[in-house]
Amino acid sequence: MSNIDKKYQTNLSGELFALSLDPKAKPTLQAQLLEGLRRIIVSSRAYAGARLPASRMLAAELSVSRTTVQAAYDQLISEGYLITRRGSGTFVAKNVSHLTPPPSRPVSDQPMIKAWQPFQTGLPDTSLMPHAQWARHLDRAWRKPEPGLLARADSLGWYPLRMAISDHLATWRHLSCDPEQVIITSSAWESLEMIARAFIGEGKSVTIEDPCWHKTRDVLRMNRLHAQPTRIDRDGLDPARIRHGSAAAIVTPSRHYPTGRNLPMPRRISLLDWATQCGSLIIEDDYDSEFRYQGHPLPSLSGLDGLQHTLYLGSFSKLISTALRIGYLVVPKHLVGTARAYLERVGPRASLVPQPALAAFMQSGEFAVHLRRMRRIYSQRQSHLISELRVVDDLLEIQPDDAGMHLCLPFRPTLLQKTTDQDISSQARRSGLSVGALSAHCVLPNKPQALLLGYAGFAQEVLSKAVRVLEGLLRV
Amino acid sequence: MSNIDKKYQTNLSGELFALSLDPKAKPTLQAQLLEGLRRIIVSSRAYAGARLPASRMLAAELSVSRTTVQAAYDQLISEGYLITRRGSGTFVAKNVSHLTPPPSRPVSDQPMIKAWQPFQTGLPDTSLMPHAQWARHLDRAWRKPEPGLLARADSLGWYPLRMAISDHLATWRHLSCDPEQVIITSSAWESLEMIARAFIGEGKSVTIEDPCWHKTRDVLRMNRLHAQPTRIDRDGLDPARIRHGSAAAIVTPSRHYPTGRNLPMPRRISLLDWATQCGSLIIEDDYDSEFRYQGHPLPSLSGLDGLQHTLYLGSFSKLISTALRIGYLVVPKHLVGTARAYLERVGPRASLVPQPALAAFMQSGEFAVHLRRMRRIYSQRQSHLISELRVVDDLLEIQPDDAGMHLCLPFRPTLLQKTTDQDISSQARRSGLSVGALSAHCVLPNKPQALLLGYAGFAQEVLSKAVRVLEGLLRV
Repeated sequence: MSNIDKKYQTNLSGELFALSLDPKAKPTLQAQLLEGLRRIIVSSRAYAGARLPASRMLAAELSVSRTTVQAAYDQLISEGYLITRRGSGTFVAKNVSHLTPPPSRPVSDQPMIKAWQPFQTGLPDTSLMPHAQWARHLDRAWRKPEPGLLARADSLGWYPLRMAISDHLATWRHLSCDPEQVIITSSAWESLEMIARAFIGEGKSVTIEDPCWHKTRDVLRMNRLHAQPTRIDRDGLDPARIRHGSAAAIVTPSRHYPTGRNLPMPRRISLLDWATQCGSLIIEDDYDSEFRYQGHPLPSLSGLDGLQHTLYLGSFSKLISTALRIGYLVVPKHLVGTARAYLERVGPRASLVPQPALAAFMQSGEFAVHLRRMRRIYSQRQSHLISELRVVDDLLEIQPDDAGMHLCLPFRPTLLQKTTDQDISSQARRSGLSVGALSAHCVLPNKPQALLLGYAGFAQEVLSKAVRVLEGLLRV
Repeated sequence: MSNIDKKYQTNLSGELFALSLDPKAKPTLQAQLLEGLRRIIVSSRAYAGARLPASRMLAAELSVSRTTVQAAYDQLISEGYLITRRGSGTFVAKNVSHLTPPPSRPVSDQPMIKAWQPFQTGLPDTSLMPHAQWARHLDRAWRKPEPGLLARADSLGWYPLRMAISDHLATWRHLSCDPEQVIITSSAWESLEMIARAFIGEGKSVTIEDPCWHKTRDVLRMNRLHAQPTRIDRDGLDPARIRHGSAAAIVTPSRHYPTGRNLPMPRRISLLDWATQCGSLIIEDDYDSEFRYQGHPLPSLSGLDGLQHTLYLGSFSKLISTALRIGYLVVPKHLVGTARAYLERVGPRASLVPQPALAAFMQSGEFAVHLRRMRRIYSQRQSHLISELRVVDDLLEIQPDDAGMHLCLPFRPTLLQKTTDQDISSQARRSGLSVGALSAHCVLPNKPQALLLGYAGFAQEVLSKAVRVLEGLLRV
């Protein structure tokens, strides 16, 4: 061995012996050792060809087991970093000198966790999720996966989940459908995009409510459809005001977003008549109707229609967690084929990993128990928020809502003269509150002024504090 | 109680007592009982208001515990199906008569599992996935989820996974990047769509290889970009032939898809020069380079470039499982902001559920062990397939490939006179084989004729049988 080789070998051993491993830390010793070895090996071209200390020796120096070291060596051999010469030991491969070391950082070094800001709307309290049950279902589903999970997946989603959703809809939303009609997606946006691309098509006009979830307008624009905003009145959308030539209408009949109004039965009937006469589609966005605090959930419009002209949009992000990224779309039987063709073209986005676990969570009845529990808690949070909001009763109209996850609070005249909901919203953001502005969801003139306060995701004491901050902003 | 009530009560009890529950079957007794109860209750308007048998009695009849029955009753009460009158018992609610029963089907009743057809390309053998390890990581990640998993998610993905991917790329693909540059997506299609919409923009021209993965052309078309196919030669894409005005080029330098050719260093250099001079982007689709059977993986083009003009496209669907639906995109630092804005607009699609488990699977080193094992097995399968294919050596050019998951077998003159690759492909499909046709990935005239045979996903005996079927088709 040349002196140069010797020199680098010594340096290399020195560096390796200097590795500090923490038995108590994550990741495992094995993983720490691997990362350390890699970084050192690629840290200098000079190490190319240098011999590594015998595993026994390194193990002793680092006081880890010899197996741990040998395993690390083996892995790096397989990765092409190290080579073995029979009898003469383990060496750094010659051709890794052009490698650059992976940026070295502790696992803890990740960006600040962004907590949700109080009053954020559409947010469930994920800390109340029955994590142990959920984890058990994940473990069971994947420890010995059903053959179907390893075979060619149906691009419409995992069938047992589609069955569970169809049962859930029959029970909770009075919507009877065949599992074949249920399509698993990753989000409401993906569902709407599929509708725009596969069922409606570029250049068509689509009636939307005004106010309306702003993302709905955005997804239409991005897919080259013309949104026709139609101002709602106190009873929601008036079908008589739908403009001629609309290929579809996107509505929130059970709870208008974000005002929370219900579409009365006569309007539901005439909306269905409109769809029948014009051969148009109705897209029912039923985003949080499971959370109803008085009486039973209203039947869905799609249920009333028997899914002939209606598509039903649902999601678990508000019922379970935004981390799930599982939504669904229920379509008329004659559209299932089109949906399948579209999804086989662009590929499904929803991961299969949560799907069998979610199916089991629903079939076991644990999901219904969870919804019931959340309904109880959210209802208490709403009452608490309302009682706290008394202090600004002179500025905002405060009425209880019999459902949902947020309150919509119209400005009273005194406040109207002073400011706008979007001003309050941006001031609130600077004070760490995520207060929605009703006018931000409108495009038509004479935008109504109201604040949107989400309460479902936040504990009562958080809501109390937030109200005090909000009052400060309103009283300025 | 009126006689009518009595009558229906008797029928109801009768139907309930007739419920058959299977203690050994999935789902749980509890779930079976719930589904049964629901279906019976909504099966007839006549049951509205009828009294249910005491839980004790039903429990005895069905020989289940009284708690099971009471739990089922409680749930149906909370769902609005049943009501209790203090002292007088449990009754079917009056207002469920308009409910329709959920379609009744055993859990087993799901569509036939579609197995993958032999020779399907780009398919890992998911049965060899270390399921127990994977399930354990899922369980650990979600039993007590890290705060970050319940907080506001970074739309670019779970940071520890982005760290693990950046480490993996440094080690396996000689690509050094900051985790901030790694973006988690749900699929290659989503990655390409993001590139088209966020980084290139409508109406631009994009150079693609010819042949080229047909979905690449499709995603460009759907997002209104003009594909400029450029015929490859034996060394892959010749940068000198890139037409003027291309905003980007989508390339597979490590292994041209589907021919498996490597882009030699001089061409890589001149490709990077082209991007620098024209300010164009290079999208490197590195779809299966981890599976290299001779020598070490070639450095990625993006690594050579230091991610200045290159975007790197990767996926776990070929490395682990198509069920995962986790892909990733590595972008130059100056594009991270644009990507974040785009994803916050359209919403992330990749589920968070698998992300912490995948991060742990990678950090623990188990992922590298899995890749190494797959590499060994796939290499054996390739050799086996090649030896089996000797019988058609007179019709197809059979050369071993030093990497990848499929073989590309050009037609010999004798076969060229007889048939086309697409004819063979469609005949094969009818015989239960998924044989790819090279010409199907081409748009330019004089399409080369070759068969694409995926071997990674199939056991040796399956491949042997499939070859015999294929020979039959070729000899006709």
